[in-house]
Amino acid sequence: MASVLILNGPNLNLLGTREPGVYGLQTLDDINEGLENGPGKGHELRFVQSNHEGVLIDAIHEAREWADGMVFNPGAFTHYSYALRDAIAAVGLPVVECHLSHTHAREEFRHKSVLAAVCVGQITGFGRQSYELALLGLLGKLNKKSSA
Amino acid sequence: MASVLILNGPNLNLLGTREPGVYGLQTLDDINEGLENGPGKGHELRFVQSNHEGVLIDAIHEAREWADGMVFNPGAFTHYSYALRDAIAAVGLPVVECHLSHTHAREEFRHKSVLAAVCVGQITGFGRQSYELALLGLLGKLNKKSSA
Amino acid sequence: MASVLILNGPNLNLLGTREPGVYGLQTLDDINEGLENGPGKGHELRFVQSNHEGVLIDAIHEAREWADGMVFNPGAFTHYSYALRDAIAAVGLPVVECHLSHTHAREEFRHKSVLAAVCVGQITGFGRQSYELALLGLLGKLNKKSSA
Amino acid sequence: MASVLILNGPNLNLLGTREPGVYGLQTLDDINEGLENGPGKGHELRFVQSNHEGVLIDAIHEAREWADGMVFNPGAFTHYSYALRDAIAAVGLPVVECHLSHTHAREEFRHKSVLAAVCVGQITGFGRQSYELALLGLLGKLNKKSSA
Amino acid sequence: MASVLILNGPNLNLLGTREPGVYGLQTLDDINEGLENGPGKGHELRFVQSNHEGVLIDAIHEAREWADGMVFNPGAFTHYSYALRDAIAAVGLPVVECHLSHTHAREEFRHKSVLAAVCVGQITGFGRQSYELALLGLLGKLNKKSSA
Amino acid sequence: MASVLILNGPNLNLLGTREPGVYGLQTLDDINEGLENGPGKGHELRFVQSNHEGVLIDAIHEAREWADGMVFNPGAFTHYSYALRDAIAAVGLPVVECHLSHTHAREEFRHKSVLAAVCVGQITGFGRQSYELALLGLLGKLNKKSSA
Amino acid sequence: MASVLILNGPNLNLLGTREPGVYGLQTLDDINEGLENGPGKGHELRFVQSNHEGVLIDAIHEAREWADGMVFNPGAFTHYSYALRDAIAAVGLPVVECHLSHTHAREEFRHKSVLAAVCVGQITGFGRQSYELALLGLLGKLNKKSSA
Amino acid sequence: MASVLILNGPNLNLLGTREPGVYGLQTLDDINEGLENGPGKGHELRFVQSNHEGVLIDAIHEAREWADGMVFNPGAFTHYSYALRDAIAAVGLPVVECHLSHTHAREEFRHKSVLAAVCVGQITGFGRQSYELALLGLLGKLNKKSSA
Amino acid sequence: MASVLILNGPNLNLLGTREPGVYGLQTLDDINEGLENGPGKGHELRFVQSNHEGVLIDAIHEAREWADGMVFNPGAFTHYSYALRDAIAAVGLPVVECHLSHTHAREEFRHKSVLAAVCVGQITGFGRQSYELALLGLLGKLNKKSSA
Amino acid sequence: MASVLILNGPNLNLLGTREPGVYGLQTLDDINEGLENGPGKGHELRFVQSNHEGVLIDAIHEAREWADGMVFNPGAFTHYSYALRDAIAAVGLPVVECHLSHTHAREEFRHKSVLAAVCVGQITGFGRQSYELALLGLLGKLNKKSSA
Amino acid sequence: MASVLILNGPNLNLLGTREPGVYGLQTLDDINEGLENGPGKGHELRFVQSNHEGVLIDAIHEAREWADGMVFNPGAFTHYSYALRDAIAAVGLPVVECHLSHTHAREEFRHKSVLAAVCVGQITGFGRQSYELALLGLLGKLNKKSSA
Amino acid sequence: MASVLILNGPNLNLLGTREPGVYGLQTLDDINEGLENGPGKGHELRFVQSNHEGVLIDAIHEAREWADGMVFNPGAFTHYSYALRDAIAAVGLPVVECHLSHTHAREEFRHKSVLAAVCVGQITGFGRQSYELALLGLLGKLNKKSSA
Repeated sequence: MASVLILNGPNLNLLGTREPGVYGLQTLDDINEGLENGPGKGHELRFVQSNHEGVLIDAIHEAREWADGMVFNPGAFTHYSYALRDAIAAVGLPVVECHLSHTHAREEFRHKSVLAAVCVGQITGFGRQSYELALLGLLGKLNKKSSA
Repeated sequence: MASVLILNGPNLNLLGTREPGVYGLQTLDDINEGLENGPGKGHELRFVQSNHEGVLIDAIHEAREWADGMVFNPGAFTHYSYALRDAIAAVGLPVVECHLSHTHAREEFRHKSVLAAVCVGQITGFGRQSYELALLGLLGKLNKKSSA
Repeated sequence: MASVLILNGPNLNLLGTREPGVYGLQTLDDINEGLENGPGKGHELRFVQSNHEGVLIDAIHEAREWADGMVFNPGAFTHYSYALRDAIAAVGLPVVECHLSHTHAREEFRHKSVLAAVCVGQITGFGRQSYELALLGLLGKLNKKSSA
Repeated sequence: MASVLILNGPNLNLLGTREPGVYGLQTLDDINEGLENGPGKGHELRFVQSNHEGVLIDAIHEAREWADGMVFNPGAFTHYSYALRDAIAAVGLPVVECHLSHTHAREEFRHKSVLAAVCVGQITGFGRQSYELALLGLLGKLNKKSSA
Repeated sequence: MASVLILNGPNLNLLGTREPGVYGLQTLDDINEGLENGPGKGHELRFVQSNHEGVLIDAIHEAREWADGMVFNPGAFTHYSYALRDAIAAVGLPVVECHLSHTHAREEFRHKSVLAAVCVGQITGFGRQSYELALLGLLGKLNKKSSA
Repeated sequence: MASVLILNGPNLNLLGTREPGVYGLQTLDDINEGLENGPGKGHELRFVQSNHEGVLIDAIHEAREWADGMVFNPGAFTHYSYALRDAIAAVGLPVVECHLSHTHAREEFRHKSVLAAVCVGQITGFGRQSYELALLGLLGKLNKKSSA
Repeated sequence: MASVLILNGPNLNLLGTREPGVYGLQTLDDINEGLENGPGKGHELRFVQSNHEGVLIDAIHEAREWADGMVFNPGAFTHYSYALRDAIAAVGLPVVECHLSHTHAREEFRHKSVLAAVCVGQITGFGRQSYELALLGLLGKLNKKSSA
Repeated sequence: MASVLILNGPNLNLLGTREPGVYGLQTLDDINEGLENGPGKGHELRFVQSNHEGVLIDAIHEAREWADGMVFNPGAFTHYSYALRDAIAAVGLPVVECHLSHTHAREEFRHKSVLAAVCVGQITGFGRQSYELALLGLLGKLNKKSSA
Repeated sequence: MASVLILNGPNLNLLGTREPGVYGLQTLDDINEGLENGPGKGHELRFVQSNHEGVLIDAIHEAREWADGMVFNPGAFTHYSYALRDAIAAVGLPVVECHLSHTHAREEFRHKSVLAAVCVGQITGFGRQSYELALLGLLGKLNKKSSA
Repeated sequence: MASVLILNGPNLNLLGTREPGVYGLQTLDDINEGLENGPGKGHELRFVQSNHEGVLIDAIHEAREWADGMVFNPGAFTHYSYALRDAIAAVGLPVVECHLSHTHAREEFRHKSVLAAVCVGQITGFGRQSYELALLGLLGKLNKKSSA
Repeated sequence: MASVLILNGPNLNLLGTREPGVYGLQTLDDINEGLENGPGKGHELRFVQSNHEGVLIDAIHEAREWADGMVFNPGAFTHYSYALRDAIAAVGLPVVECHLSHTHAREEFRHKSVLAAVCVGQITGFGRQSYELALLGLLGKLNKKSSA
Repeated sequence: MASVLILNGPNLNLLGTREPGVYGLQTLDDINEGLENGPGKGHELRFVQSNHEGVLIDAIHEAREWADGMVFNPGAFTHYSYALRDAIAAVGLPVVECHLSHTHAREEFRHKSVLAAVCVGQITGFGRQSYELALLGLLGKLNKKSSA
């Protein structure tokens, strides 16, 4: 069994209501539930979402105490939060970066992730499924099997 | 009657004391009062100021529930907070960006607003009056008349 | 009473017919009339529009003789006319730069104003209202009250 | 049932022997077999690998005749083959780009994909598993279930 | 006697555990204690660490009430927090920027400090000693002698 | 029958005398005559050349009244006149940009046309023939046949 | 009589089916036939299309044996194939570069032709007619008359 | 005896009144008179000043008929008027570029002259004396002696 | 005895006929013969030339089976073929890059080799002798003596 | 006891006379004396200043014979002397870079140190005290105690 | 009477022999003699030429003792010697920068002078005459009359 | 017989002791001896090494009197000494640039040689052998045979 932090950054609390053309109709709770009943079945998943960079940093720090890895959708912090980058490097846990939309096909500023260098993989463009694939990928790296 | 969020970003709580040569002598309370007695008369104005990016994002999210638009002085977040940009895009309300100083005539890094692309207009350089003009402009866009 | 030059650059003579989706349906005469009956009431307003950079420079030079300030929509000259910049710096009058469209949200080349460094403020994105707000802002800077 | 082209670009024929520290020990045949027995079970998979850009373009063109989508590891063509980009745009099939290594954490030139703009998603950094996740993601987009 | 704020930015709470190869083995408490018993002896030192940009801004604002200067290790905020820059400029106290590692010899993005322009000096590369030298330097600027 | 403005920018009045190694020996009148007796036969052609950006803008504006399209050699305005770009966009007529010399093979600054984005086609490098091909191309776009 | 190679690069075999909104409805055979019955009448035309850069280079090399010049639509190779550039320079025949779409008005990367420096002219934006104008232009340079 | 055009660009008509801290107190007439009584004595000098780029181009064209060379202060056109550059190249007369202020020590945009490549020399920073030195330099190049 | 692949990229088959002012008069066969009778005497040399990137990649892959190293003139692929770079890295043999002309003294785009990072040395500017020096250098690295 | 080279680059011989607003009133001898009586007490200090890059390189080379480390104010060589960089790397001694002024807050070109990558720390902005802090820091790194 | 240092940088000792097509046929002694008999008549001129940056810095330092200003041809040091820039700033004497060739019309790297910001004027392109004009200009700034 | 200057720039006097992992174990004397007994046998070789740019320039100047060409390892001056570039251009002798390490595979700043444009060839990456190959190449260019 793996213990995984599912971490979500700014504005992702609005999922389901925010720009559905870009981000789809499901809420973050829907997605989280889908992870628990899907690839995360039989594993410990904890969920944190915050619009506050500091709260995300704190959550990453705390993950050292209990988690084997993280699935992280950093939202727009992807593009400038070197503080989150340092946090990930500091805790030394494997992190899979994921995005609902295909960021590499959107505005130029979304092509660059300042976090990528300290993550172990990246998945973009699959909507809700991005989280599922990210969790599968993380479990694979942890040599844990998904029961889904 | 329009409902408008008057939103102020980091360091604007220091107005009246901070670099008066650049920002003038009035406090933020003076400015807010001026808006209520001036162009905002007869409209619902609510005021939020924070030095915390996350608090500003939360306030923008909440505005969906009650506001018709926003006047936003993002302070230095103007130049790097893609998270605020996504927040504005997500709530879909018209936002007028305003600045006390004439940012386009100051340091190079102040010329670029990462928020402009999701705002409906921008006003720079009029000190306290920047807010009044921004509110007038927003009311105009909302087809509301200022009673001032 | 203030004396103000309302100066318009290239292609603004086409207003009302040119790309109405971007620039609206009103003609420049409509806008000028609106200024005279609106915020400019009781003040001396003079109007110059030209597609010729040199004519605009001449008008700025002449303004030294009679005007207290200018409201200037430089059109596309905004982005390359260093000659206009030098003209404004030379006459030493306060100039408010205004644009009908929200230039900072359009093509990259429209984000940069080579004039901003010698103007006292900038207003973008309010259509016809941009001129009204600009005039109000200029009058404020001149410590003149708009009677509108 | 979905029909999917599994397309591999230059040097991927060397998998298992090439820089195992970066790319792992499995051969491309191992990976393909894993796809057939894994997420591709019950679907039609066809496999093409070439070191020749033109052969890859031809294969993409032919895919219009029989495939519902593609999983594509373009190798180093990722970074400069605008011809492949045009080929993908031309055939109009959904393509998931995948990479064995976490390209965004390697040399600067590997951070930019000239293909991303015409793909529907991207997966990097999971070794062999990158293909499995990519196929799962593609099937999800095609509303096909993986039987794995 | 001088009153000095010792301010630490994101992830510095992890000192002693985080990447010891880069940042050394001492905790922030060890460092702070060392300052009190070392160059800060006989002076008033107050300590704030936060992973929240807003909390740091608030602390800087409050320092106006009691402090003569600051020693500030902004962590990764060094490279993008223009809000902190404005906060420092606003309060008008001398700030010495310090870093444990030799940032100018690390990744390119760490070479640029957006805060430097509003600080009075910078010290990088001495580990725990960076703080001691920074405090000595600040006291020198305040014409206060260290009793250490 | 089509009505076409043949528009020439700065320095093209010198054709036949100016740098014949680069621009050939024919005068602009020769070229215009060749157009009338060649591909323009049976169509209405009007000719404007000016060294004044404003005169060119005025001519483009007037073309709205009578022309179906334009052949435009903007000379050096190609590289910086955003005012001409706005003029072309404003009148909404198809414009073919042409150049005597092969601008893309000359100095770096001649490779970029700020007008291209609002033109329908571009022809460079055929000397006098550039105009003929441009007129043929424009007539083709207008579904008019050249009788030449 | 002139002998001309009509050379087409990658993805142009798909013409008529590929992105008709951008490239039109005619096939490459239609275009070639149109050239033979149009401006190429009475001249020797040979046609080569390939998605393989190497095949195009070989065809250019062979053209030294029989051709007087080339009309070349290099497709996406336009933007990066320095090998094609060297091939054109090596054979020393006049080459007219042509494009169906108006490349200078599309994505930024399509504005730069690495081949232009070794070609004698460029035509963009006229769809099928681009080839006809290019052939006319080449024949003009060869002092050959089109009988069309 | 040499015939020389003394050409002055935009805003130089304001000399003596415009930013005297930068440009000095003498009028253009004072300067011209100084040239006639100074280094230009015994030579034919003609004077043109215009704020209109087109008028300057026309004057350069006409100089072919009577002048041996030019002294040219292009004002702000220095930095963007490729049309003036082409005009100078077209007439083939030696042109000495001069500036009152030391442009290379002012704003970044003033460091680049797009005209320099077609001029024979450049003099900056000597106020009124810049013209005198430029005329001396031009006469030297024409192998004419100044009688001053 | 060493076994060495002498590999030549696009357009080098034209040597002796192509731009002799730049590349000299000898054919590739002359050069190869010179290598066999010169520094390669007593060693196994095999020769491959292709205008096809894929063929070059295949040849590099095959060299793993028999060669101790390579002398490679990649022609224009030098500047963009990251696929060749990956091929060289993958096979792990020492490669000496060589060029007939002094590429660092030609067009800007020829100054950058995307292959250099995975080669062991580079030689430019000695014409036919570049190959001989490259082979000598490679043999030296292999601790093999040339008998020439 | 540590042996330390105190090395000063170009123009630092003028200290006390040169731009005192920027660099202070003390001479280099004053500073050196202060080091000997201050943090350098009980250690061997040797002093070299030169305006000649080569002399500085020689001094660094010689330091290998006798010194444990260096305090180096490279003056303007900081920004371009890659030869000094190589010298420092070659001798392998720890070097602390120091500057009197706060270089990171001055002209853009002073923000970049080409030496930083081979130094162990950097101190800027403390005037004479910069040297003292640098020596303290170096002694700390050498695990030597300052007796001051 | 003025005292002026005529300072020449690297390679100028070769004048008269070096690239006469670019730099002319006169030796530096010829030029110096011309200055003494020409504009420098009645003034004290001293001459220093060196290929050593340090020697030039020393000469500038010494000039503080005896000179009123300098005419300086820094040769290639113009483009990178920030040490010379600091030397000029340090001594506080007016320096006129001059160049034999018209550097702004040569290679890109010669367009930028890192010294210009601390000089009072610049003259380029007049060969030997550049020195004479520079000396005249300097004397003018010193309010000294040339007797030539 | 040829006369050749073997010229070495800064830090190369340390060879054999400096960073042997990068530069090898042989001293410069070893290398020079190897040249005399190797490819330089029967030719006149003279050796100069200096850490002083000016000494190297002087040596290049003097070479005009006696040498037929130069082998030059400029060390770090490669990357910024435009003065050395001018010196080489001035004397007009063929110069082969060589480097012990493979500079194009090291730090970005080492990829650019400001000297390459005035040299006839470049050799990098062969350690001591770089000099031998460079001398062989130079002798080849001088049509002199090496007797080695």
